[in-house]
Amino acid sequence: MLLWLRQYRRPLLAGDITAGIVVAMMMVPQGMAYALVAGLPPVVGIYASILPPVLYALFGSSMTQSVGPMAIVSLMTAAALAPLADPGSSLYIVLAAQLAFISGLVLLLCGVLRLGFMASFLSRPVISGFSNGAAILIIWGQITPLLGATLPHWHAPSLVLGLSGLLFLWLSKRYASRLLRRCGLNPVAADVGARLAPMALVLAGIALVAYGGLEAMGVQTTGHVPSGLPGLNLATSGAHWRTLLSPALLIAFIIFLMSMSAAQTLAQKRGEKLHTNRELLGLGAANVASALSGGFPVTGSISRSAVNFQAGANTPLASIITAGLLALALVAPTGWLALLPLPVLAATIIFAVSSLLDWDTLKLSWRYDRSDALALLATTAGVLVLGVEAGVVIGVLLSMGTLIWRASRPHIAVLGRIPNSEHFRNVERYEAQTLPDVLLLRIDAGLFFGNVEAVTERVEDELRGHPTARHLVLVLSAVNQIDSTALLGLIELNGALAKRGISLNLAEVKGPVMDRLRQSSLLKDLSGKLYLSTALATNDLSGKKSGEPA
Amino acid sequence: MLLWLRQYRRPLLAGDITAGIVVAMMMVPQGMAYALVAGLPPVVGIYASILPPVLYALFGSSMTQSVGPMAIVSLMTAAALAPLADPGSSLYIVLAAQLAFISGLVLLLCGVLRLGFMASFLSRPVISGFSNGAAILIIWGQITPLLGATLPHWHAPSLVLGLSGLLFLWLSKRYASRLLRRCGLNPVAADVGARLAPMALVLAGIALVAYGGLEAMGVQTTGHVPSGLPGLNLATSGAHWRTLLSPALLIAFIIFLMSMSAAQTLAQKRGEKLHTNRELLGLGAANVASALSGGFPVTGSISRSAVNFQAGANTPLASIITAGLLALALVAPTGWLALLPLPVLAATIIFAVSSLLDWDTLKLSWRYDRSDALALLATTAGVLVLGVEAGVVIGVLLSMGTLIWRASRPHIAVLGRIPNSEHFRNVERYEAQTLPDVLLLRIDAGLFFGNVEAVTERVEDELRGHPTARHLVLVLSAVNQIDSTALLGLIELNGALAKRGISLNLAEVKGPVMDRLRQSSLLKDLSGKLYLSTALATNDLSGKKSGEPA
Repeated sequence: MLLWLRQYRRPLLAGDITAGIVVAMMMVPQGMAYALVAGLPPVVGIYASILPPVLYALFGSSMTQSVGPMAIVSLMTAAALAPLADPGSSLYIVLAAQLAFISGLVLLLCGVLRLGFMASFLSRPVISGFSNGAAILIIWGQITPLLGATLPHWHAPSLVLGLSGLLFLWLSKRYASRLLRRCGLNPVAADVGARLAPMALVLAGIALVAYGGLEAMGVQTTGHVPSGLPGLNLATSGAHWRTLLSPALLIAFIIFLMSMSAAQTLAQKRGEKLHTNRELLGLGAANVASALSGGFPVTGSISRSAVNFQAGANTPLASIITAGLLALALVAPTGWLALLPLPVLAATIIFAVSSLLDWDTLKLSWRYDRSDALALLATTAGVLVLGVEAGVVIGVLLSMGTLIWRASRPHIAVLGRIPNSEHFRNVERYEAQTLPDVLLLRIDAGLFFGNVEAVTERVEDELRGHPTARHLVLVLSAVNQIDSTALLGLIELNGALAKRGISLNLAEVKGPVMDRLRQSSLLKDLSGKLYLSTALATNDLSGKKSGEPA
Repeated sequence: MLLWLRQYRRPLLAGDITAGIVVAMMMVPQGMAYALVAGLPPVVGIYASILPPVLYALFGSSMTQSVGPMAIVSLMTAAALAPLADPGSSLYIVLAAQLAFISGLVLLLCGVLRLGFMASFLSRPVISGFSNGAAILIIWGQITPLLGATLPHWHAPSLVLGLSGLLFLWLSKRYASRLLRRCGLNPVAADVGARLAPMALVLAGIALVAYGGLEAMGVQTTGHVPSGLPGLNLATSGAHWRTLLSPALLIAFIIFLMSMSAAQTLAQKRGEKLHTNRELLGLGAANVASALSGGFPVTGSISRSAVNFQAGANTPLASIITAGLLALALVAPTGWLALLPLPVLAATIIFAVSSLLDWDTLKLSWRYDRSDALALLATTAGVLVLGVEAGVVIGVLLSMGTLIWRASRPHIAVLGRIPNSEHFRNVERYEAQTLPDVLLLRIDAGLFFGNVEAVTERVEDELRGHPTARHLVLVLSAVNQIDSTALLGLIELNGALAKRGISLNLAEVKGPVMDRLRQSSLLKDLSGKLYLSTALATNDLSGKKSGEPA
């Protein structure tokens, strides 16, 4: 822990300071915006951007991860709390902190139990489908503040302001970097500067309200943003612990998933090693800290972390500097923030979240593996129709479903001997010779609970197709594992075949698989024999009657 | 469908009639007992044993499966309905039928969508752990009727009756078959006769109540059993459709799982083919029929199906005969059934369910694969602590968890050349020579979302351990699949390595994997080359600088 601090060298400082300032300027509008998505007062988003990154810096493993409010986690917070309290009410604020607290404890516990492998429970197409669905829900939720009224009505000044904001952000993304380069900035600085467009838009919006009389026209603003640092305490509502447990589990999972995909991208860029279980501890500590300082669930954000990295962050000191600046902003007068027009904030949310919409994965998987593409679309549909919490469950089920479905169609080849050789090949692809009384089957998949029934079914099918076979040889050269369920399946297959006068033989068992099988009764009770190679098996078994001693 | 009926031959009849009669005599106490477990009046258990097996006979695929009430499914019915109505109330009875109806529709839908592969979602150790937990819960629930009072009290006559019943059943299991053989029955008939001990016990219990004055002593009986066939209608409670949906999904899953494990055992004994999707249709039709005829969720029972098979059943006609006999029993006077003492029924339940307790799988997996054994114990604990519904969810998560956990530790070998040969082997097991600038890694697992991060992590680790490597060769001889997530992982690895001046090469790609990869951009953008063999790759790459055209 804190290896980076002990090894800190002076030359790293400049990059960390620059990144710290840039991310702080990005964090102000983003924190406020995502607090609104979660149904919370904007200042809560800034509270959640101070202590969490500091705690993550102490316990986490990524050097450039930026931890704080994040759109999808905010959406899930809103979904979890909506049935329990009115958005913005004091109970709602208490419950948001409590949700972060429980999620944080869950993450810490998972870290202690070294459950980091759980990040692999979702396939990428399913994660993409989930993000797409969540992004659409978030954008949909911002239509009302953008219009300044509920559809089918709209409030013209709000709408003009919101759409101008969107246009400004879109133009900035396309042209700002080029423009800044022409103004003499170096390419990296220009790219980073372009990322501050949302902050510029927010300042322009505030100025328009302050000096343009927008409020008199009926444009809504964020309203009073209390100044001063958040108190350190955990207001809890004992009545809701149990109700919050299951959404907190789902949120913890998504916190981890979102943060891991950001951290992995960055680690690969820097050739760094990621410590999955330390990530869990870092995120857990960050969420507990968020809960204690009046915040709500937080996670690493891929867009913000990318800016942090691009702006020169070398170590988590950058995040600590960001946190310090945000704390200063709260200590300074905050009256100006109250004037932020909501349509402008809605525009920044819509624009930020639209970058979560990912069509590439759909296109790739549609071409490469249709079942993955269908799982992606079904997850998006699940999120849109049943909501973001059900979407996580559907995503896990679909990931596992495609896995089990693929496993249920194992590739099994009938082998024959290539004439005048010791080579055995798939009879469907080669001119290979089979024997009437020996059936050679090569199983091209590790054996586990998901495919053992399918494998024994296929074996029985092949035996029905070769009624003269007295000896079955399973060639296990491609079998990397046999789990307990598969072992039981093989033991039963051995018994059933023996009763029908067919011997079961194994060939080319791999070393690690063999080590395990020696712990079992299968080898002892095997009706046939164990062979080092398929050739040895064929030579030994051809012409021999079943039941004869080997 | 109904192939067995069209091919029916006279010689099959004797076996079917015998089995039909035996199972009917087994079904009367069992049906009533499992209805009690479900919190329903005993007669509902007989209703659920008439139409469901007939419908299963029409649509199902197993020849000797006996469909009707089953202990674990009854326990789940009770768990689903307990929060909604008082056991035995008329609302409760309506909801039980509705639960069977929804479960039946779900099963039919799954059959139409060909989702039979879903039976593989649970590993055998987890199924065993689930059954153990459920059996313990059922036995625990029968302590009160066995004692005739709630612990720590007991009603002496009830307790004596119940314990005598248990003793009788235990003795019958050990000695009845032997005794009957000595009386001149042939071994099969003696075994089958011994299975009728519960019916004998029930008749003895009824006689004791009728002539021994047990009721006056305060022993409780089943009470009025209405005679006559159930009406054909579906009483529904519109208010509860949504509430019942999620338990109905879990129950449908368990119905399918329990029935499949019974059917598989039988099919293997008879060397028959099982049609998973037709099983779904058969079970779905059976449950819908149960709902329409005043029953509750039903499934295939392994113990009853084994008796059916053993008693000589050749075709589903045996089940139809059973159903006919039960219908006759309801049309005949049923007054005698009202006298059945509850402690005797509790004894039959405890005895039947104790056969579900399975220690062998625990012992086997404890020796063979500790993680499977731990998953088994955790599932049992989950059922006992959180209940049978949560137990199913925990079971699925643990099955998938062990799968993903194993996948997260893929076997990857660094290969070297065996001197003076074209053979390449794991350098940890053989004296094999490596090259300074070429790193050969053989991946011994199919690549999918569950292990691709672990694999790229290991690849990066190995690269850190071989800092002079300019060319990475992934030997894919044991890779049977690459899913979309793994493809994305490889594309990113290719990009990241290229930036660091390391080329990515693939060798020994299998035919089916290659067919898929041709649909992707990986091969086009590959920084290195594709080689047919590891030897060709090494010869080509040794001494070559990275980035040089191949």
